[in-house]
Amino acid sequence: MWIVPEREIADLVSRQAAFDAVEKVFAAMAAGDARNFPVVREAIGHEDALYGFKGGFDRAGLALGLKAGGYWPHNMERQGLINHQSTIILFDPDSGKVKAMVGGNLLTALRTAAASSVSIRHLARKDAKVIGMVGAGHQATFQLRAALEQRDFEKVIGWNRNPDRLARLEAVAGEAGVPFEAVELEGMRQADVIITIVSSFDPVVLASHVSAGTHVACMGTDTKGKQEVAPELLAAARVFTDEVAQSVSIGEAQHAVAQGMITAADVAQLGAVINGSHPGRSSDDQITLFDGTGVGLQDLAVASAVVDLAVDKGLAIEVDF
Amino acid sequence: MWIVPEREIADLVSRQAAFDAVEKVFAAMAAGDARNFPVVREAIGHEDALYGFKGGFDRAGLALGLKAGGYWPHNMERQGLINHQSTIILFDPDSGKVKAMVGGNLLTALRTAAASSVSIRHLARKDAKVIGMVGAGHQATFQLRAALEQRDFEKVIGWNRNPDRLARLEAVAGEAGVPFEAVELEGMRQADVIITIVSSFDPVVLASHVSAGTHVACMGTDTKGKQEVAPELLAAARVFTDEVAQSVSIGEAQHAVAQGMITAADVAQLGAVINGSHPGRSSDDQITLFDGTGVGLQDLAVASAVVDLAVDKGLAIEVDF
Repeated sequence: MWIVPEREIADLVSRQAAFDAVEKVFAAMAAGDARNFPVVREAIGHEDALYGFKGGFDRAGLALGLKAGGYWPHNMERQGLINHQSTIILFDPDSGKVKAMVGGNLLTALRTAAASSVSIRHLARKDAKVIGMVGAGHQATFQLRAALEQRDFEKVIGWNRNPDRLARLEAVAGEAGVPFEAVELEGMRQADVIITIVSSFDPVVLASHVSAGTHVACMGTDTKGKQEVAPELLAAARVFTDEVAQSVSIGEAQHAVAQGMITAADVAQLGAVINGSHPGRSSDDQITLFDGTGVGLQDLAVASAVVDLAVDKGLAIEVDF
Repeated sequence: MWIVPEREIADLVSRQAAFDAVEKVFAAMAAGDARNFPVVREAIGHEDALYGFKGGFDRAGLALGLKAGGYWPHNMERQGLINHQSTIILFDPDSGKVKAMVGGNLLTALRTAAASSVSIRHLARKDAKVIGMVGAGHQATFQLRAALEQRDFEKVIGWNRNPDRLARLEAVAGEAGVPFEAVELEGMRQADVIITIVSSFDPVVLASHVSAGTHVACMGTDTKGKQEVAPELLAAARVFTDEVAQSVSIGEAQHAVAQGMITAADVAQLGAVINGSHPGRSSDDQITLFDGTGVGLQDLAVASAVVDLAVDKGLAIEVDF
């Protein structure tokens, strides 16, 4: 068995490797070659923690396993540890024997960033120039850094409930040599691509904040009740997702579906666009919206790539299990 | 993080340690201090394998985690590996960080044997002399070895569809210095305790095969459709189980419930007897029946004990994860 500790991940996983793994597994899902298992997510009644498992099997990539872990809200204050804790465990699909354990904290951030990045590659207009960030938390920096590689962006604009945090986004834009501007939500009408990454239970972005032809990637909704954008925006957009069942139940599409504005049949898999079985964006005026709910197969795909790289580079710890 | 490989388990886990851990966690379940999470069990569409996760949290014992793995039916013929493959992963409930990985193959056999053994301790008549085994597969030897420690048994009787395999049970009885006799199913009327451990989709043991006052532990039914005993036996018996929800859906009680002979309210938790909140057996003439469906908390409880022992004895491998 191979062990790849959390501390090795930063040097092992390039954004390109995460992008390639996520793009490939989205395609495999749409082709019926990869499947996520039912998600287990439990309030354990200790430390206010949410804990669970996201498992799946990618028959094309032969990745079988799960991400286990969750959210311990008091970690940082009590122990100086990050609140989200994840570990990925891979199994040999030919025998069921455990194959590898991989630190999943940074990996989760990278695979989430890769998902919006894949959606931009396949759905945003080729001539997109302005990218808008809604939300400036820790994860937002990952989303922006990955997104900037997908088009020749000339400006980053950003909004956050607490504007002080926008300095983080400005720094990431600066790294890429792109100017940054703080805007009000109405200012998002400048954007050709918008990424929303906030934890909210009410819509932040309204249909009136989004111009025709924009691609919107909603990355912050993964629970019943959460919401980043107004349902009218989904009704007006062509909606794509990682997994339709999650999108309409715990993803951003839950609200538009509950209000009868769209149905599950209106939500397409991003993987189908990657595969070429769905045409994707149909015009320069269409609004496309990607509902990134987060699936276990993303974690397994990136973790599999990590293990191969770590073994090659001699950074994986071998344990005779 | 601590790693306890499969090869160390045999020397680390005594039957007594497995018994104590399982008894304690059954009690915690009945007291509301420990809870199993929804079981994930999937046909993965590769190697005819069934794969999944059984997780849970024992707040009393602070054991959090899951058993992952499943059944790979071609392992033995193709690779010389056992068909059931299990790995247990424990997490620190205070932080969500992974704490240990433990080989789960032998451990699963021992925790399953401990469950029927705990039921015998708490439900069989004190003066039980004859134990009957229905089924003589690999797991049956574990069940018998553990059961023989619970009463002063003077005879082991056994039945198996293929009688050649009964030699295994005779050997285990011999180790304990107890005579063995092969019987027809009707001969089970001699038994004061019966353990059924067969993989069957039709009842093997009928009500007419069981005498008044017997304790029956049904250990082979953990899937919809499987069945070891006639539903009339459950209707005539006082029924106990590890977890009521599993018992009435995928355990032995599923058939008697489906046929309206008993309801979920007729099935009591064995843990309540251990706790003293249920009186258990009410007379020497009563038939008691334990429906052992197998829960993740059994695995976590025994694995936790294993990790403590392995660390104490210097047999755990420490990995800086």
